[in-house]
Amino acid sequence: MSKVSLYYKNVSAEVVGQEHGISQSQFAELAERVKPAIAAVNKRREQGKTPYRDLPYNKDYPTSVKQVASDIEGEYENFVVLGIGGSALGNIAVQSALNPYMYNIDSAQREKRPRLFVFDNVDPAQLASFLDWVGDRLEETIFNVISKSGRTAETASQFMTIRQLLIDKLGEDACKEHIIATTDAKEGTMRKIADDAGYRTLVVPDGVGGRFSVLSPVGLLSAAVCGIDIDGLLEGAGLMDKRVCGDDMFSNPAAMNAAVNWHYYNRGKPISVMMPYAYALKDFADWYRQLWAESLGKTVDVDGNEVFVGPTPVKALGTTDQHSQVQLYREGPNDKLFTFLQVEDFGSEINIGPAPDCAPELGYLDGAKMSKLINSEKAATEYALLHDKRPCLTVMFDKLDAVSVGEFIYLYEVTTSIAGELFKINTYNQPAVELGKEATFALMEREGYEELAKKIVPITKIDTDFLV
Amino acid sequence: MSKVSLYYKNVSAEVVGQEHGISQSQFAELAERVKPAIAAVNKRREQGKTPYRDLPYNKDYPTSVKQVASDIEGEYENFVVLGIGGSALGNIAVQSALNPYMYNIDSAQREKRPRLFVFDNVDPAQLASFLDWVGDRLEETIFNVISKSGRTAETASQFMTIRQLLIDKLGEDACKEHIIATTDAKEGTMRKIADDAGYRTLVVPDGVGGRFSVLSPVGLLSAAVCGIDIDGLLEGAGLMDKRVCGDDMFSNPAAMNAAVNWHYYNRGKPISVMMPYAYALKDFADWYRQLWAESLGKTVDVDGNEVFVGPTPVKALGTTDQHSQVQLYREGPNDKLFTFLQVEDFGSEINIGPAPDCAPELGYLDGAKMSKLINSEKAATEYALLHDKRPCLTVMFDKLDAVSVGEFIYLYEVTTSIAGELFKINTYNQPAVELGKEATFALMEREGYEELAKKIVPITKIDTDFLV
Repeated sequence: MSKVSLYYKNVSAEVVGQEHGISQSQFAELAERVKPAIAAVNKRREQGKTPYRDLPYNKDYPTSVKQVASDIEGEYENFVVLGIGGSALGNIAVQSALNPYMYNIDSAQREKRPRLFVFDNVDPAQLASFLDWVGDRLEETIFNVISKSGRTAETASQFMTIRQLLIDKLGEDACKEHIIATTDAKEGTMRKIADDAGYRTLVVPDGVGGRFSVLSPVGLLSAAVCGIDIDGLLEGAGLMDKRVCGDDMFSNPAAMNAAVNWHYYNRGKPISVMMPYAYALKDFADWYRQLWAESLGKTVDVDGNEVFVGPTPVKALGTTDQHSQVQLYREGPNDKLFTFLQVEDFGSEINIGPAPDCAPELGYLDGAKMSKLINSEKAATEYALLHDKRPCLTVMFDKLDAVSVGEFIYLYEVTTSIAGELFKINTYNQPAVELGKEATFALMEREGYEELAKKIVPITKIDTDFLV
Repeated sequence: MSKVSLYYKNVSAEVVGQEHGISQSQFAELAERVKPAIAAVNKRREQGKTPYRDLPYNKDYPTSVKQVASDIEGEYENFVVLGIGGSALGNIAVQSALNPYMYNIDSAQREKRPRLFVFDNVDPAQLASFLDWVGDRLEETIFNVISKSGRTAETASQFMTIRQLLIDKLGEDACKEHIIATTDAKEGTMRKIADDAGYRTLVVPDGVGGRFSVLSPVGLLSAAVCGIDIDGLLEGAGLMDKRVCGDDMFSNPAAMNAAVNWHYYNRGKPISVMMPYAYALKDFADWYRQLWAESLGKTVDVDGNEVFVGPTPVKALGTTDQHSQVQLYREGPNDKLFTFLQVEDFGSEINIGPAPDCAPELGYLDGAKMSKLINSEKAATEYALLHDKRPCLTVMFDKLDAVSVGEFIYLYEVTTSIAGELFKINTYNQPAVELGKEATFALMEREGYEELAKKIVPITKIDTDFLV
């Protein structure tokens, strides 16, 4: 039996009623509607247009990753990723999902692996705090700069700062030992820098967008270095691949997931909440936010019509957000589809301690398994939402391990591809990011952007008449 | 000059156009519309119905907090909060905002203060990892259990587990030293337990809901213990108080904030994105999510009409989410109001290192201040959003310190109160949380919930016909 599956009963009209649920005939219509979308996705793959689909089977990437991981094994106390977006979110999510909560603090739980830090921002206070600490530990620290082009302003700034620090403290030659570049195989700024300076390099595959790259060297190196079973991740993705190609929605979880999400978007529920009931999966909700928002948030459809489409992904966490968001989720507008992530076997267990004698009202918790409590809270929250006719999906993990995490990743990637076909948009581009980048160049006074600067400055300058 | 202010030019029709902007006459209408809401909020305060308003002036709470902090000063390496919702989110947010990023890892940056851990979940894997580490460090660890009633299932379970661990490892008497209870002054389960066992206690004030409690002992103890200037927090709140009572929206930032948010909710923008451009403020976006969602997400209005109202708060982070969410924010549906948090003085600075000789295209970053880069990215992102007619507010911090954080907290609390009046709902209750709690009791087989269990189990049981 497979480890990850999608449970969709609680979006059915049988459970949440006709007004907010999917009736049998609507399921049947969706199953027809999604067939050509699946076919289009399969065809695109055959044409080599979505190379992320073949990452589970690529042997070169894991081999090269393991080679680098093995080269540096036992040499470093700290492994630092410099990247942003798809060059950070997958690394963070895999680490949180598969390594212990106290990994960075407890050397025993790390089992001689390095600590992992991922910097995906250009906050001077955050970075200063880190540099203050790492400055005396550079000998035992290695940096993995991840950027296809090397020109992303955030990653380039971090890289330039770290590189200078290494040169100042350990000398020019140290960079070769202490920097690994994951970048384009042949061209671009970072490839040029890496080849020039003789860094170790790994490849960001062509045609694999950042948000689809976690199973490439982009996401695999930090995982391998931190002791995560990357073969298991790839195996899981391959297992899921077998289940997401067929044209029957009722046996294709990606098709069902995409169809249900698309259906609700068009039915007054533009908000898609992902709510893991497992602390370890919370960062996968952020990974999903990028995958979903960048892929499906588009102004024009493939025919050039203005559609301004795209569900808004929202990250939540059970049980934490029961005491924060569930009031709104139950009583506010019925404008959301909920997707819970549920884990049967957490790998560890806690038996809740006894109630103090003076508090028999807590006796019902006495000696209970904590996994039973968290899963009861999930069922209870879902019950309360269903009571108020809010549709709910659940992705079920029978166990949280590398294989199931690989399955989950691939499930959501293919779900996104199929959803993109249903929305009739280009799933793989991100045209809106460009203007902000250029505006940053202008505001940083980069040569060639003087005209844009003239346009921007009057708009971004504070007008004190509007300050309160 | 005050340290925190609200900039609203970029919601004006002048900037984003008539279709999505607020015209001068609409601003004037809003200013009239918000006056009775401000008056109602002020009256409620005078009647003693919103005691959170007086927390900046209460002397007993900070005195008792400082007494406890001083009692334990230098005695412990680890301070662990057990709480959830309002008993956790404020503690986390204040710590992230005002202590260094590496606080828990770098003892030098902690300056002999204890590490801070906040547990607001019942995840067995997360807690097992922590207990595995802390088990050998109990002598140097102190726990602050925060619960008004003591019956919240999550906090009670954590407490019962930790209490038993202390008894097993250090003996029954150790609990007195190693547990501080922040709870009701007189009654409830935790008060009973604490008095019975002789724990140190602090008070959760009456009438102050969890989400409005960060400036009470609930939020102040962990802050004081970790070296944060709690007098500064309260001073800032008091400074903001002076600015949020007047009935002129154009000089009352809470009124302006509430009115603009309410206006857009009613104008097809039900999603409210808070996007700090400061890593340190990211957890305040979670604090805000609770404040906003639990206060404003309501099915019935004060007259008993079904309204199903409530904006959906979304957490984002600049610059990180430029590479994740901005594609959707610019190109997707124009259904969001954006609120940026911007910091002028981060307290620390980084000068970006030089570009490698072979990469002159990065020269524009060479030697630039990182604070200039992050703030340029904010301006650039806002420019790109305005280009696509997306309305944007900015909360401006001239400096990130205890005073400005106190101002921000109080600004948003009063904003929420005024918004509640505009939405005509009960801002201070959370009726929808109850059913989920009862359903948890039923699923945990608590006595007295057998009938509910019979209703729930058939609904929450997995029906394999719907598993794909």
